[in-house]
Amino acid sequence: MSRLIANKSTALDRWLTGRLSSAIGDAPVRLALWDGFEYCPAGTVPAGTVIIRKRSALLKLLLEPELYFGDGYSAGDIEVEGDLVGMLDTVYRAVSRRPTCRWFPALLARWSSWAQANSLRGSRRNIHHHYDLGTNFYQLWLDPQLLYTCAYFRNPCDTLEQAQIAKMDHVCRKLQLQPGATVVEAGCGWGALALHMARDYGAIVKAFNISRDQINYARWRAKQEGLSSRVEFIEDDYRNIGGRHEAFVSVGMLEHVGRENYRELGSVIHGCLADKGRGFVHFIGRNRPTAMSSWTTSRIFPGAFAPALREALEVFEGWDFSVLDVENLRLHYARTLELWLERYERSREKVAGMFNPDFVRMWRLYLTASIASFRSGSMQLFQVTFARGQDNTVPWTREHIYRWQDDSEQEGRWIRAMS
Amino acid sequence: MSRLIANKSTALDRWLTGRLSSAIGDAPVRLALWDGFEYCPAGTVPAGTVIIRKRSALLKLLLEPELYFGDGYSAGDIEVEGDLVGMLDTVYRAVSRRPTCRWFPALLARWSSWAQANSLRGSRRNIHHHYDLGTNFYQLWLDPQLLYTCAYFRNPCDTLEQAQIAKMDHVCRKLQLQPGATVVEAGCGWGALALHMARDYGAIVKAFNISRDQINYARWRAKQEGLSSRVEFIEDDYRNIGGRHEAFVSVGMLEHVGRENYRELGSVIHGCLADKGRGFVHFIGRNRPTAMSSWTTSRIFPGAFAPALREALEVFEGWDFSVLDVENLRLHYARTLELWLERYERSREKVAGMFNPDFVRMWRLYLTASIASFRSGSMQLFQVTFARGQDNTVPWTREHIYRWQDDSEQEGRWIRAMS
Repeated sequence: MSRLIANKSTALDRWLTGRLSSAIGDAPVRLALWDGFEYCPAGTVPAGTVIIRKRSALLKLLLEPELYFGDGYSAGDIEVEGDLVGMLDTVYRAVSRRPTCRWFPALLARWSSWAQANSLRGSRRNIHHHYDLGTNFYQLWLDPQLLYTCAYFRNPCDTLEQAQIAKMDHVCRKLQLQPGATVVEAGCGWGALALHMARDYGAIVKAFNISRDQINYARWRAKQEGLSSRVEFIEDDYRNIGGRHEAFVSVGMLEHVGRENYRELGSVIHGCLADKGRGFVHFIGRNRPTAMSSWTTSRIFPGAFAPALREALEVFEGWDFSVLDVENLRLHYARTLELWLERYERSREKVAGMFNPDFVRMWRLYLTASIASFRSGSMQLFQVTFARGQDNTVPWTREHIYRWQDDSEQEGRWIRAMS
Repeated sequence: MSRLIANKSTALDRWLTGRLSSAIGDAPVRLALWDGFEYCPAGTVPAGTVIIRKRSALLKLLLEPELYFGDGYSAGDIEVEGDLVGMLDTVYRAVSRRPTCRWFPALLARWSSWAQANSLRGSRRNIHHHYDLGTNFYQLWLDPQLLYTCAYFRNPCDTLEQAQIAKMDHVCRKLQLQPGATVVEAGCGWGALALHMARDYGAIVKAFNISRDQINYARWRAKQEGLSSRVEFIEDDYRNIGGRHEAFVSVGMLEHVGRENYRELGSVIHGCLADKGRGFVHFIGRNRPTAMSSWTTSRIFPGAFAPALREALEVFEGWDFSVLDVENLRLHYARTLELWLERYERSREKVAGMFNPDFVRMWRLYLTASIASFRSGSMQLFQVTFARGQDNTVPWTREHIYRWQDDSEQEGRWIRAMS
């Protein structure tokens, strides 16, 4: 009997549910408790229902909603009825419109940025956490070339495969890569872009990465494609890049550099870029400085930070680099993530054979919440092209990036044309 | 006899000449004194000769080179033999490479920013100083439509007229202007862009400016072209912009806003931009924060400030605007200024009939030094396109900006097609 009473929500539980609703900006979301009690902000049509299965889950949610929504969802103590993307989109928009108490998230962010500092050793640990989950896992839901960054959809209905190839071409066009150009890539993932630059643009590439799994895979691919003489995959930190190169490119690494290291990253680029060299950095950013979600840095990407565009410019400012071009591809990342999530859901059973159920739910939430972040505008995707400040060989206009028709034939497959 | 001795350069004068050379970064420039003494940094081929005609000019140059080079050149106490643009380009590059003593320029900049503060009244005084010199003066060396901002050269050999029209189209394409769109323009010069948006894109425009000369001229032009019902020219400060508009555009005004007012400018845009509105700001900027030359703010543009891109982003960050696109057109401004200077030199006699000889030289130096600033990379020209942070109707790619062939016919002259 006392057990039954304990399981029934009390007046306090119900009042706390109202407080929780207010903490998420009175977003139009129905909150349901373990005994069927429901709360929904007056006058709203709910975008979905969050079912809180335990009192402890309710209390943890109130204390640290960002962290515990993710943990509770992964553990199955929190469930969602309805469209999870749409519901999160709604919540992110509501939260961004109201001033919230930030001292606790700020404190957590500071603590985690210390615990997860991107020193040479810390970076290895942080990168290993995410990128060394096994290539066969990522193969289940990425495109066949394993590009794990925002694709470029010339049309929103392009396939993921098309859009990832178009993204690589978009990067190469922005860099105006010419046959024989020497390129250094910082953070090369499974090597697709490095191989693409060598195969399709005739570049000579040195590609750096500290994820051993990824480097081993990339080397294997280079061998398979007969590109080992043109692309060198180096298992090392970007801070150890040396030499002089005609292009510096980094896609999806700045998020892992840590804001305290931006000046040092600039110094590395300054040291390795030729006088007439081109630089390109692609990263997840923000419209204004914002702490990372504590769930993201605790469970998904330790040491990660998505800077406001203004913050990211610190990389370039200290070294008289000149920003030539900034493009925001936010909606392209939402689309990329939708296609990843679709594939992930189709591979659910295979994932379940590799990981425990909590992981399966956690990863679903990570992809879903990321879609919502880009859709709601709480995350951006910036591509920055730059050159040295005194270089007058920079392109006259950006028309060359969009001259697809003209050169779709002659560009072709560079290496094949050679042989 | 004592007069002759006084006119001969002393050992001290000669030593000071060496110090002056060092103060300009040992740039390859020959410094000549009034009596024929010459100094040139060892091992350099001089890009030109600066002739200092008086001891007082030498001393003032040492004390405050930026300010007094301009004043001395205007007064005829300093002359230059050789290519003035090339020589200044060389000096700017040399100076940017070496750390200089900055306390005196910084102090001057602080004093002048106080004396020239862009309050409502201060802005009127500052703008009047430059823009109310008389439309007939600007007609001598600008294009016929009197665009006094960086043009856009699809090809470097385009004429100034072509490039100014292309610039206006470039702006309208970035804004994706549709017939009937309501636009507010902050700082409209002589009205060319406002009229272009109405005539060629069917927009309904409210254009603000605090220069009375310019507003009067713009109203006269609107009447001449029968566009008075579509374009309203308002003699008022940007801070008094009200209403809600589908586009906010400002070309060449941010330089006059003053850094202390960036947040307020953001607030004005936040207040007047529709939820799905597009914003566009075009301004002279820097690669890194840099004080304005004291000569520029004293003699040419009181109250002006060219921000680093990072500084300019303060306009947008406080109001959750999302930067969609940044383009750097530095070399286009160098080309624009070259064409202005050519026309200015061709109109030299007419200018001499309007102003005294010091002014004629001062204006030549202003145009010349500006060319050198953009060529050497000490100045940038940024175009920033933005939208509200939660607006998902933003363009999918930037291809539409470069689709010239497709719509060169249909776009045509919108108003004419209507009649």
